[in-house]
Amino acid sequence: MIKANDPKLESWIEVPKNSDFPIQNLPFGIFKGENQKPCAASIIGKKVIDLNALAQLGYFDDLAFNKNTLDKPVLNPFIRQKRKVWRMVRERLSYLLNKENATLRDNPENQGKIFHDLKDVRMKLPVRIGDYTDFYASKEHATNVGTMFRDPKNALLPNWLHLPVGYHGRASSIIVSGTPIHRPKGQTRPDADKPPVFGPSKLLDFELEMGYILGQGKRLGKSISTEEADEYIFGLSLFNDWSARDIQKWEYVPLGPFLGKNFASSLSPWIVSLDALEPFRTQQPKAEVEVLPYLRNKGKNALDIKLEVQIKPEGGKAKTVCRSNFKHMYWTMQQQLAHHTVNGCNINAGDLLASGTISGKNPSSYGSMLELSWKGTIPIKMNDGSERKFLQDGDTVIMKGYAQKSGHVRIGLGEVRTKILPAT
Amino acid sequence: MIKANDPKLESWIEVPKNSDFPIQNLPFGIFKGENQKPCAASIIGKKVIDLNALAQLGYFDDLAFNKNTLDKPVLNPFIRQKRKVWRMVRERLSYLLNKENATLRDNPENQGKIFHDLKDVRMKLPVRIGDYTDFYASKEHATNVGTMFRDPKNALLPNWLHLPVGYHGRASSIIVSGTPIHRPKGQTRPDADKPPVFGPSKLLDFELEMGYILGQGKRLGKSISTEEADEYIFGLSLFNDWSARDIQKWEYVPLGPFLGKNFASSLSPWIVSLDALEPFRTQQPKAEVEVLPYLRNKGKNALDIKLEVQIKPEGGKAKTVCRSNFKHMYWTMQQQLAHHTVNGCNINAGDLLASGTISGKNPSSYGSMLELSWKGTIPIKMNDGSERKFLQDGDTVIMKGYAQKSGHVRIGLGEVRTKILPAT
Repeated sequence: MIKANDPKLESWIEVPKNSDFPIQNLPFGIFKGENQKPCAASIIGKKVIDLNALAQLGYFDDLAFNKNTLDKPVLNPFIRQKRKVWRMVRERLSYLLNKENATLRDNPENQGKIFHDLKDVRMKLPVRIGDYTDFYASKEHATNVGTMFRDPKNALLPNWLHLPVGYHGRASSIIVSGTPIHRPKGQTRPDADKPPVFGPSKLLDFELEMGYILGQGKRLGKSISTEEADEYIFGLSLFNDWSARDIQKWEYVPLGPFLGKNFASSLSPWIVSLDALEPFRTQQPKAEVEVLPYLRNKGKNALDIKLEVQIKPEGGKAKTVCRSNFKHMYWTMQQQLAHHTVNGCNINAGDLLASGTISGKNPSSYGSMLELSWKGTIPIKMNDGSERKFLQDGDTVIMKGYAQKSGHVRIGLGEVRTKILPAT
Repeated sequence: MIKANDPKLESWIEVPKNSDFPIQNLPFGIFKGENQKPCAASIIGKKVIDLNALAQLGYFDDLAFNKNTLDKPVLNPFIRQKRKVWRMVRERLSYLLNKENATLRDNPENQGKIFHDLKDVRMKLPVRIGDYTDFYASKEHATNVGTMFRDPKNALLPNWLHLPVGYHGRASSIIVSGTPIHRPKGQTRPDADKPPVFGPSKLLDFELEMGYILGQGKRLGKSISTEEADEYIFGLSLFNDWSARDIQKWEYVPLGPFLGKNFASSLSPWIVSLDALEPFRTQQPKAEVEVLPYLRNKGKNALDIKLEVQIKPEGGKAKTVCRSNFKHMYWTMQQQLAHHTVNGCNINAGDLLASGTISGKNPSSYGSMLELSWKGTIPIKMNDGSERKFLQDGDTVIMKGYAQKSGHVRIGLGEVRTKILPAT
């Protein structure tokens, strides 16, 4: 077992019950404290840990890695140093924060330089995302969409069970949790007998996804096998793949989604390592057809991460509209990465891959308004009595995720929270 | 008229007849000379101009811009300074290279520090490409593909005449001219009654495109009108959008091309400014339906650039297989950029947009083997007697482009040249 995952570990820093960030998590992010430049951080309970300050104060002196990489406004240079280094730093944090360890516990002066209250800092987008790829890996989601828009009898297209369908998305418009978005404007064709029209999207939607950030590059012409894939995955964040369904519907044939998606996508600020999620590995759903050898996936490669989506109307109370689980995904991250590179496509540290909408079998587990309201035919009640088929201006969409099982400490992803402002 | 475009200008540097790079061109690129770091460059005739050396020697001292940006391995920091600066530097080069001007002409010592023979240097990818978007803007190409794969009577999909269809591509695998590629491997389904198979692509193809590089960013939530678009376009390069047709065919529904494209795309090293191409502006093809106001495009926004594609078999002589023209494009760069940002999608300096395959009406002007060989039904004869339906290992694909008309000096794009190596 990974030492830092030991459920018996406790910290001398207070961790509220059911916190997403116990000593067994220790995710990575980029924070900006008052009067200081953005730099690398971790979190425990409600305390943000300044990793650059830890380095400056000598707590990493005996660790063999480039400490200057912690003093940057993005994690790319740090994570490019590969898994050995991410692990080393997480293990060191676990050691320093352990209640048995006096090194930092009994040094209030240094504590003052290292810890910040989460409420006093600003979290930034943790990586410069070179390329972003979105998959379509939930069988339930693909089936729902195929049923609504194509043919219920042949909802899945012929390729779907043979390869993890994916497409390239826009990297520039990925924003961190807390950044509001404007309702996008665009061209739609609500009436096929009339010319298209221009205006604010009327069918604005979220998509509940997991994002995973690559930590190590691979050269053009090389591939990554499913067995090797874990070495390349730095960690996971929550991801809201905003979608304007009316724009998307009109534009997407034959080359895929474009303006219906690229106005914004939202990422949670903390990247939780695969290591921290190790206890929650589980079997993926059974393959329904035999896959080609490069997509075979031994062992437990799915992750049991409970997910939920809330909608909070302007001035109102948040209502949970979806409860899903990352383990439902038919295709795993490892299969996606193997597929992505099987043709020699190169990857870089900081690239973002996303799972696609995570829907389960139960209608309450559908990961988008499109599916939850079944194309706008089933309105969803908010706590204030109002109804939603799609999202309204003023709504805040909140996605949360955590892994929990008996004998282990809860490991949370935090949240990605985004308010929708009216079209400009 | 822009002063540097004056056809009467001549340089004291020898420019071979029909050179792509007369004094009226002066494109930008990144070169690496022997024993020096990569930095910004221009070219005249066969002489590469070290722009950083010019700055160091004081030739830009009176120009108000950040000269340190010329000392970088990519042009992004330079072009981010906006059009005024690109123009200023091009005008200064024109002034210094003018045969009437003695400043540099009579200073052989400085010349030795500034000029390099093209054959002695290595050209690098000129920009770090943040995001890459590919369009599908030739009506002839879209019609050909629709005819072959869908329905000859309804070859164009309903959205095609109403908006410039585009999709996101892979930025990481864009390589500079001269870099060989390996034939990609991947999943295909040659026989719909049998399971898919894995192996090297059998239908490797080029796509003749123009790439254009953005020089100025725009914030998330803002849009660029067709009228403003020129201010954001730093310049043009030749672009080969490699395509593995068999991989693409099996994977592309419903979310668009992915592994059939992202194994590599090739860009020519010199970025020719819109200013240099100003004399070759022409009217785009007449719109067949009225477009929405945000896509209206006043004036001459197409460019008359002659294009050709050659295939050079291993050890053999190059054969021209396509002669086309950028002016055939139904949708202009300005319309594409306006469409891309109409939903608030942000752009950054160094982003690459590409036109999509440039096919004309005449079959010899089709910009891909898919169309030239009409899906492999019409073999194309090489000079050595061999035939091509698609590309073979050992083939080198060479794309060239230049603008020429009476009363003006020829302005060339140079070439993008790529050899195909066997699958690894």
